[in-house]
Order: sequence, then C-alpha cells, then structure tokens
Amino acid sequence: MRLNASVALCLLTSAANALPQPQQPAATATLPSEPASDTAAASSQLDELSKYAQSLANSSLTSSKRAACNIANVAIRREWGSLSNKERKAYTDAVLCLQAKKARYPTSIFPGVRSRFDDFVGTHINQTTFIHYTGTFLAWHRYFTYEYEQSLRNECGYTGYQPYWDWSKTAASGLTKSPILDGSQFSMSGDGEFVSGKGNVVLGGNGLPDLPLPPGSGGGCVKSGPFKDMKVNLGPVALALTDGTTVSNGDGLGYNPRCLKRDLTDAINQRFANASSVVSLILKNKNIYDFQMVMQGIPGSGSIGVHGGGHYAMGGDPGRDVFTSPGDPLFYLHHGMIDRTWWIWQLLDQKERTGAKGISGTGTFLNTPPSANTTLETPIDLGLAAGTVVKMKDLMSTTAGPFCYIYL
Amino acid sequence: MRLNASVALCLLTSAANALPQPQQPAATATLPSEPASDTAAASSQLDELSKYAQSLANSSLTSSKRAACNIANVAIRREWGSLSNKERKAYTDAVLCLQAKKARYPTSIFPGVRSRFDDFVGTHINQTTFIHYTGTFLAWHRYFTYEYEQSLRNECGYTGYQPYWDWSKTAASGLTKSPILDGSQFSMSGDGEFVSGKGNVVLGGNGLPDLPLPPGSGGGCVKSGPFKDMKVNLGPVALALTDGTTVSNGDGLGYNPRCLKRDLTDAINQRFANASSVVSLILKNKNIYDFQMVMQGIPGSGSIGVHGGGHYAMGGDPGRDVFTSPGDPLFYLHHGMIDRTWWIWQLLDQKERTGAKGISGTGTFLNTPPSANTTLETPIDLGLAAGTVVKMKDLMSTTAGPFCYIYL
Repeated sequence: MRLNASVALCLLTSAANALPQPQQPAATATLPSEPASDTAAASSQLDELSKYAQSLANSSLTSSKRAACNIANVAIRREWGSLSNKERKAYTDAVLCLQAKKARYPTSIFPGVRSRFDDFVGTHINQTTFIHYTGTFLAWHRYFTYEYEQSLRNECGYTGYQPYWDWSKTAASGLTKSPILDGSQFSMSGDGEFVSGKGNVVLGGNGLPDLPLPPGSGGGCVKSGPFKDMKVNLGPVALALTDGTTVSNGDGLGYNPRCLKRDLTDAINQRFANASSVVSLILKNKNIYDFQMVMQGIPGSGSIGVHGGGHYAMGGDPGRDVFTSPGDPLFYLHHGMIDRTWWIWQLLDQKERTGAKGISGTGTFLNTPPSANTTLETPIDLGLAAGTVVKMKDLMSTTAGPFCYIYL
Repeated sequence: MRLNASVALCLLTSAANALPQPQQPAATATLPSEPASDTAAASSQLDELSKYAQSLANSSLTSSKRAACNIANVAIRREWGSLSNKERKAYTDAVLCLQAKKARYPTSIFPGVRSRFDDFVGTHINQTTFIHYTGTFLAWHRYFTYEYEQSLRNECGYTGYQPYWDWSKTAASGLTKSPILDGSQFSMSGDGEFVSGKGNVVLGGNGLPDLPLPPGSGGGCVKSGPFKDMKVNLGPVALALTDGTTVSNGDGLGYNPRCLKRDLTDAINQRFANASSVVSLILKNKNIYDFQMVMQGIPGSGSIGVHGGGHYAMGGDPGRDVFTSPGDPLFYLHHGMIDRTWWIWQLLDQKERTGAKGISGTGTFLNTPPSANTTLETPIDLGLAAGTVVKMKDLMSTTAGPFCYIYL
C-alpha cells in the first residue's frame, strides 16, 4: 500500500492503438469560448474541444520509443458507442471475470466482499468522505478508474482500455436507446424492471433547500444484458430512495447480496449532463475550485453537476448511493467521462492546471471536519484494491507522469 | 468483525469492586434543576447528580448472581485521583504493554500500525467521519473505550477498570497540578516541554467564524512519567497547529513515528469543561440532539463543548487532531468522562434516554454527505481493533445490555 511509492504504472504497449501522426495543435483562437445553449451546437463544440485536447496531447508525446510514454504506446480510451460488439463484449466479459475472482480484502476487514470487483467497491465506500468535495476528488477517481482498468487487463485478460460514457450522447438519444444502456448483450445492461408509483428522490438536508429529482423508467432489478445476474454485495450507506428517504446498512461493508437495480432517468441526464452542461463546465470555470465544484454541484445551488447528473441518471441501487456507487459497473464508464472532461479542461491550460494550481481543497468532504489542504505531495492510497501509494503529483497528467493514456 | 453479532460482552467479576448495598434512589425533587454558575457550587451539584445516578444504577441491579450483570459483578470505573499509586501504575503499565504488543491490523491495511494500541488509533482514524456529530457518537465511543479497557484486562493482565479524567477537578486545580497530569510516575505523564512564541490554534472554516483557542504551557515532547518514551506512529490527518494552520500526512494511516506532544491549556479546560459546563450540559439539555450537540459544540456557536474542551485542553500532537486523538493515552480517560456524563444524563430519564428516543442523527459528520438516520439497529463495528459487530441497542445502557459497569 504505502510501502513502494515509486513504481512506474505505465507498462502499456499496443501498436494497434497507435495514434495518427502528431499534428500541430489548432490555435486556441479557433476554439469555442462561449458555450452554446443549443445542445446540438454544444455537441459540436465538445467535439472541437476534444479534438483540440487530442492534438495537444498528441503533440506533447514523443515518437521516441525510449520515452516511457510515447506516441506508439499511449493507450486510447474510447466512447462505448465507437467500440465494436466484440470489443464491448471483451470489456463486459472482463468485468464478469473480476466479479468471479477472489477478493484480496479478507472478510475480517471488509466482511461483505466476495470478489475482486468488490475490493474496489469496498475501498470507495471506506474512503467516500475523503474523496468527494475534497482536493483529491478528480485525481483519486482518475487513479481508481485506472487501477480498475489495469485489473481488467492484468487479471482478466482484457486487451482494450477503459471505455467511457459520453452523457451528452445519451442526453440526445435517450438512455435506453443508446448502445451503452439498450440492454442488449453488447451493452452495459439496461434499465431495471419498471416499478410503478415511484415518488421523487430528495437531495438536500443540513438546512439546504430540498432538491427533488424525478424517478426514472425502471426502478427494479436489471433483467437483461451482461449484468442481469450480478449481485451487489456491499452497501448501502446513503441510498436515496424514490420515497424521499435514505437508507443504510451500517457502514456498508457487511454482506448484503441483492440484485443490481437501475432507474434510468433521461430527465436527469438531459437536465444536468447534456452537451451544453459539459461545454459550459469546461469553458466557464477557469480555476480548479470552480471547475470541480460546478462538476460536483455546489450544495444548495439546485445543480448536481455533470458528476451527479451521471450518477442519478443511472439511478437505482447502488447508483443513488454516493458511497456504494462503484457497485454498478457503469460507474467506471461514468468516471471515464468525468476524467475525460477534466483531461480536456487541463489541456486547455496545461501548465496551470496540471501543477500545484490545479489542486484546490482539503482532505475532507466540504472540509467537514476541517482538515489540511491537499497538495502535490498528498498521498493517495487505494488500499488492497490495487496499486501502490502514489502522490497527487503523479496523478495530475495522463501522459507526463506514470500514466500513459489519452481520450479519443 | 461483522460475523458473530451476538456475544455477551460482560464477563466481568470482581468481588473487590462490589458496591455498597442497594439504596432507594434519592427523590429527583432534591436534585439540582438549575446549574450553578459558581464552579464550586456546580461541583457539589455534579457530586449530587453522580450520586443520584449511582443510586439509580445500584437499585436497578439485582443481587441475584444468576443475572448476567448484578450487584456483585458490576465493574466500577473511578476517577484517576481516587486511585492508589499502585492502581495508577497498574493502569499505565497495561497501556505500555498494549503499546508493546503486536498489532492485529496487517500493514497492508493500516501501513503505520506498530502495536495493539495502534489498532485502536487506526480504527478511530478510519471511522472519524462516521462517529463524530453523528447518531453513533456517544455509543461508538462507549464501545471503543470499553473494548480498550477489555484489551488492557484480557491481553495485558490489568485487573482494574477504565479510570476517568474529571475535567471539573482539573479546571479547579490546574492541569499540571492534578494527579492525572503532574508528570510523576503515577500520572498519565504531564505537559510537553515548553515551547515559546506559540500563537493561537484556530478552529472554524467553511464560512463559520474563526474560533481562536489559546496555546498552553507546553507544546513540545512529553518528557516525564510513564509515556515519556512512547511513539505516536499514526496521523496526523487534521492536526491544528499553534500558527493557525492545519497539517496532515495523507489519510494518517502511514508510519510516521514521533514523540507524544502535549500543550496543557488550563484556559481551555476552565472555559469549556469546568463543573458548571458539565452540570449545565446535563441539566439544560432535555433531548439527545441538544445534549450531544452541546457536548461536542454547535459549529459556529463559539463553544467546543466539554468534548472539545477536554481534547483541546490536552493540546499537542495528536491531542489537537480529531482523527488521531486516541494516539494520546489520555484519550481514554477523557472519553471515560464523556461516557460518565452521558451515563448520568441517561439515568435522569432512563426510559426515554436509553431507547430509540435516546438516539438522534445520521451516519455522517454533521450529515455531510447526507445519510440515513441512526437507529437502535444500526451496527457498530470496531474492525480488527476489538469486539464483535454490535448494534446501537446493545450500547445504550451500561448495565442492561452486554455491558456491566457503572461510575463512582
């Protein structure tokens, strides 16, 4: 865990994923500066921003194979819809493999873990209050998603990379009509069974105004696709239900097997995580404090940000539980997109946004209880789930540090 | 941990500690109802309240030895100053024994643990945001202190019970003049070495007004008494310093050996944890929400309560770190007094205050992030530190459930 702090994480090689030849990055002057409120126009803007980020990342990579991360070995993470059926199935097969593999955590530590997949869920539960609305939020989840991808590759023979869920696409298409959530064998499974008579999920508390969120088109167990038989073993800790209440099972680390529930909610996807939301987040927030707060939703603002937008658009159990949310395999595709959004934002001002000025916040959720500022030297530790103890400075770039990947 | 939920915790027998014969409890009409603002008068009131609680506890215990907890086997926790030198040394010897014993936590889980004593520190660090300003605060710390006492007894041959630090006595005497902190071989060690030029510790943050707390009469390493050579291995996570800043070492679970520092601060003891503070807390707060909030200090109120009063009166490192505070052995005497104060308060209206109405709050620090309400069924788990998984309902009485102890 904390013992071998310096390990090169990036041993990725795949000629098949080689990028096109480096190009000169487009001048920033040609980039959108004002987010379009029309989602179709914003969608084009997001494409432009993404291409610009790709070209910048590309041009910063050397073609020398002596470099740890170079143009020939850089991993490319792709949007789910751009994968072939074979690639999609390879991914979900690897997730199922992880769910069938023995846990590293002993049950004396996390009593409810039953698989390697659960090692990640338990680690997230255990650290929830230290990794959301903190200085570590984006970097921690970058590392977590990366190590999950590495486990799929190294322990389950997956040869691809972490795909992502582009919320702006599902906001336009509808969740259940998207290749990612259509419930087919080549999807991430679909909606839960329809449950009638649901009320709102209600966020808020602590004197903040209530924020009611509508229920979705499912609500029950997921019945088709690769994850129709999976068991959620851990949690809940703070699961918001559609009767406005919140339930827990103590610290959520006990064994509590149940089906995977989803309640896909287009209204939430379309309200908080459409193309305009993403482009606005990237363009309007010039410092990391604003960027990560708007992304997570400023408490009391009435917005849950694109981060909350993705989570609550999944809905269900554990989708609506900030602690247990990695218990839905879609979590990692969602956080792929969170990471991609940060990656684009970072590349727009690489120098400022990948160094010390790219960090803001402390070690505790909304600084409650008050704690020390997160710095480049703050260690990040995923416990027995995976990886070694690294520092924030190792996580600020996807190509300059131990990581070696970009987004297409 | 979570596997054997029903185990009788109370196997305590000690005829030497038998109580005086049961008496009829004094009528509540004779009890003080208004806290005296004069601390000498309040001190007498506290004695009266304590005696009343003792008589009630006593009268509720049967003399039948068939009962799991009866008049002959009930453990009696005493104030440090009332112990003989031999009893004091037996206690500190047992603590040193625990500090010399092998940890149960593997370093793969808590990399910094080096002893059984550290198992408790690590568990507290790991759960800090789930056990302060939550519905579990009092019960969790009751169980934690109890299991620590049991480890001293069962693993280190200690035959006494957990002593407590009566803050009202040290507020009157001065900390370094008290038997508990005079630095003698029969104390809990004393002040840290004097460090000059210290500024204030500053609490607050998150938009709350700053709450400056004065520095104390030490500040450096503890140099005499039983703990002069001890090493604090874990933390800090949120250590408030006398330059107004807060420092951390990541999640605080890494190995970071250093001396035990104290900065004994009479001004804090006298301001927040004098006899009037204690009596006022007990008499003025009629429901558990108010009682536990005032005890911990309502954020923004300018008060840190008797709970904060004890912690910050210790000062130093780890005394001023809410996460790592059990790294100072005085923690357990402080929480003995916290538990005694709750015990007195509970006995004043036993029926209301040991059942469901005796619980208020959720599973997260100031309900941030929002989580489910704590109930009698909420499980409490001390991890590998000690004990089995119990429920809140097991922890609400010190004599009616698995526990079997009272305070003298």
